Amino acid sequence: MKHYLQFSDLGAGDYAYLFERAALIKKKFKAYEKHQPLIDRTLVMIFEKASTRTRVSFEAGMYQLGGTVVNLTTEGSQLGRAEPIEDSAKVISRMVDLVMIRTYEQTKIERFAAHSRVPVINGLTNEFHPCQILADIFTYIEHRGSIKGKTVAWVGDGNNMANTWLQAAEILGFTVHVSTPSGYEVDQSVAGLRSTDSYKVFQNPMDACAGADLVTTDVWTSMGFEAENEARKRAFNDWCVDLDMMRAAKPDALFMHCLPAHRGEEVEADVIDGPQSVVWDEAENRMHAQKALMEYLLLGRVDPV
Amino acid sequence: MKHYLQFSDLGAGDYAYLFERAALIKKKFKAYEKHQPLIDRTLVMIFEKASTRTRVSFEAGMYQLGGTVVNLTTEGSQLGRAEPIEDSAKVISRMVDLVMIRTYEQTKIERFAAHSRVPVINGLTNEFHPCQILADIFTYIEHRGSIKGKTVAWVGDGNNMANTWLQAAEILGFTVHVSTPSGYEVDQSVAGLRSTDSYKVFQNPMDACAGADLVTTDVWTSMGFEAENEARKRAFNDWCVDLDMMRAAKPDALFMHCLPAHRGEEVEADVIDGPQSVVWDEAENRMHAQKALMEYLLLGRVDPV
Amino acid sequence: MKHYLQFSDLGAGDYAYLFERAALIKKKFKAYEKHQPLIDRTLVMIFEKASTRTRVSFEAGMYQLGGTVVNLTTEGSQLGRAEPIEDSAKVISRMVDLVMIRTYEQTKIERFAAHSRVPVINGLTNEFHPCQILADIFTYIEHRGSIKGKTVAWVGDGNNMANTWLQAAEILGFTVHVSTPSGYEVDQSVAGLRSTDSYKVFQNPMDACAGADLVTTDVWTSMGFEAENEARKRAFNDWCVDLDMMRAAKPDALFMHCLPAHRGEEVEADVIDGPQSVVWDEAENRMHAQKALMEYLLLGRVDPV
Repeated sequence: MKHYLQFSDLGAGDYAYLFERAALIKKKFKAYEKHQPLIDRTLVMIFEKASTRTRVSFEAGMYQLGGTVVNLTTEGSQLGRAEPIEDSAKVISRMVDLVMIRTYEQTKIERFAAHSRVPVINGLTNEFHPCQILADIFTYIEHRGSIKGKTVAWVGDGNNMANTWLQAAEILGFTVHVSTPSGYEVDQSVAGLRSTDSYKVFQNPMDACAGADLVTTDVWTSMGFEAENEARKRAFNDWCVDLDMMRAAKPDALFMHCLPAHRGEEVEADVIDGPQSVVWDEAENRMHAQKALMEYLLLGRVDPV
Repeated sequence: MKHYLQFSDLGAGDYAYLFERAALIKKKFKAYEKHQPLIDRTLVMIFEKASTRTRVSFEAGMYQLGGTVVNLTTEGSQLGRAEPIEDSAKVISRMVDLVMIRTYEQTKIERFAAHSRVPVINGLTNEFHPCQILADIFTYIEHRGSIKGKTVAWVGDGNNMANTWLQAAEILGFTVHVSTPSGYEVDQSVAGLRSTDSYKVFQNPMDACAGADLVTTDVWTSMGFEAENEARKRAFNDWCVDLDMMRAAKPDALFMHCLPAHRGEEVEADVIDGPQSVVWDEAENRMHAQKALMEYLLLGRVDPV
Repeated sequence: MKHYLQFSDLGAGDYAYLFERAALIKKKFKAYEKHQPLIDRTLVMIFEKASTRTRVSFEAGMYQLGGTVVNLTTEGSQLGRAEPIEDSAKVISRMVDLVMIRTYEQTKIERFAAHSRVPVINGLTNEFHPCQILADIFTYIEHRGSIKGKTVAWVGDGNNMANTWLQAAEILGFTVHVSTPSGYEVDQSVAGLRSTDSYKVFQNPMDACAGADLVTTDVWTSMGFEAENEARKRAFNDWCVDLDMMRAAKPDALFMHCLPAHRGEEVEADVIDGPQSVVWDEAENRMHAQKALMEYLLLGRVDPV
């Protein structure tokens, strides 16, 4: 049994399969062709942080696969309050087939997984957001082909998205250019990389974008950090992705954002709403990529690549 | 692609079809006969106002049609807070097949629909409640036959229900007698009627009921207007539907109420619990009418009338 | 039409059927063998008290039976606030096939059932928790065979669980040894027993456990009694199930707890996590037992015992 707690839980071969599979599953969806390999399987979703995109993409995705979903929304941080996380994991995992958790500390999801009888998926933690990067790279491949050898510019917060990009780069063989404001740097130890070969740090976001194949960013204040909002607005002022940055990147560079976006803060409207932006495909692809992932965790490889 | 944002979004021919179809769908339901034309289709429901009837009728209805449901309940007014409504519409409508929204301003649902790739249904706004009137007229037809040429007395608040009755009267060829307290009049500009032929305003609710085929009302204080509760109680004191009003109506007049009801306020117990009341059929018919509507929006006319 | 509002709503023959049926349904689940007798049927769940175990076990269970679920979570006590409970019962029960309610007063669920067109299941009230005892006895049978003639020691609060054990003992022919702190005694009138033959009261919990086949307890402060928490901690100090109590019971005695558990309060870790504890089976069996119950309420006996 495999969990998907961080991007590094799978290898390059798994991802090659998943991207092919997601493309096939997407094609079937668009053609209204039924694809229900997970009939009789149930997903429990545990949300300690609010969500629309993760919620709809997992829930609709599971339904489309023929499965069913129990959505346990808790307000604030409750996992582990009424009973030890280990007890919850033991009980829940005896009744269902798959668990998706969106929570705060990565350790929480790891403790849950350690006592779960069924696969656990990270739907976002403070440290990682592997399902989003899975969708992002799938989207890149859809538009431009293999990401191997390419350069991704990460502009902004050294957050869970940045950590996950670092892991992905090492596994899939591309380079990440990271530019964050001072005080919001990526902490490489979180990603647990084998080397520093796959990423480069830049003071100036424009330098990070130079020659990039993909420019991507995130809100300045992620969920859970709202108290820092004003300080972050000041610190991140120069880390707004604008047309100048996009011009510094390759002519055919793409722009991605995991949404929701604040136009005029981390990205200008003429970028996110411009011709290089693929944010709507990226959002939709959360669903297709996660369908491939859920199928894989429950059934293994079901189709030759 | 058609949306259903107000009653006037469909024409008399569409309604003739929908009423026939709802009757057939109801008959199948009562006979435990499976009717699952929407297998593999997913409905997203967005609730900015709490709901039991709308929630159960849409969710159970969609399940009965073979489809699945993602229920996004938000507290207070959130649509458009985390991100522009247009962004939410683009993202959500790429993952599912149908959207139902219960919200405050009609403009919100219109902005959502303008950027949605899939049909959007109005599950109640401050201005309109077309699904309720759809069910009400279906219920009238079930009990008394065609509503054409008949008279509906609306007693009470000039609210979203009243506005929708005005639209329905113009489209389906019946007359609405409206009696509201001073200060709570129907604003005809909201309904956007072509003429004033289909409704008449009465100071005295008893006059509005005279000769009516159907007497109907609503709570004095609709959701979102709780702060006005005491002022409304004073103003609406004479607009309680009682046996005298029912006696002023035709002998075979029906009584309807979209529920929840406050006995002793807008309606006396001996009316709503009396022999002319069809409120339980009316509530149940929300589900059957909406099933016909959802099927129609997704598949078009699937059965000859 | 049968409701399941308290344990005494069914007789010994019904239970013999249900335990056999639950075993069969569990076996199919473990073998990934589809068992979908409730396709096209919808369960509404109304939660006035928060829940994880009841939520997941009913919802996943209904899905596995091929049915669908509408989950109405209300905060605090809302059933009966917006409209009379009788109105809610009439409306909801016209749209769905089965209702599960977790609420406060038993009278609420009884009023609902009296006006419901479909079966109603008690998912926990202040007075009773029949689904839990159904699962507990199913678990006992799984591990030790028939419970007839056996002795169950109830150590702790004279609460809804204790009341339900009393009913079960009278119906199924076993004995309950009850030991509660002073002031927290079982009120026999709640259970409505025909006689006092099936239970014995003990001052000392150790005496209650002497010779028992099953030792079971519950949290000191059940939901709804949080204000009494400190007073309860003092009063219940000697009612912690520890290894001494388990040694007083029969050598092959089982330990059960409906969870969530507070180790070091009502039970020591070396008991609940020890070899006599079957709490994880017990939790899982909520789902299997309730699946048998739902099938029975909707379809009657479908299999010879």
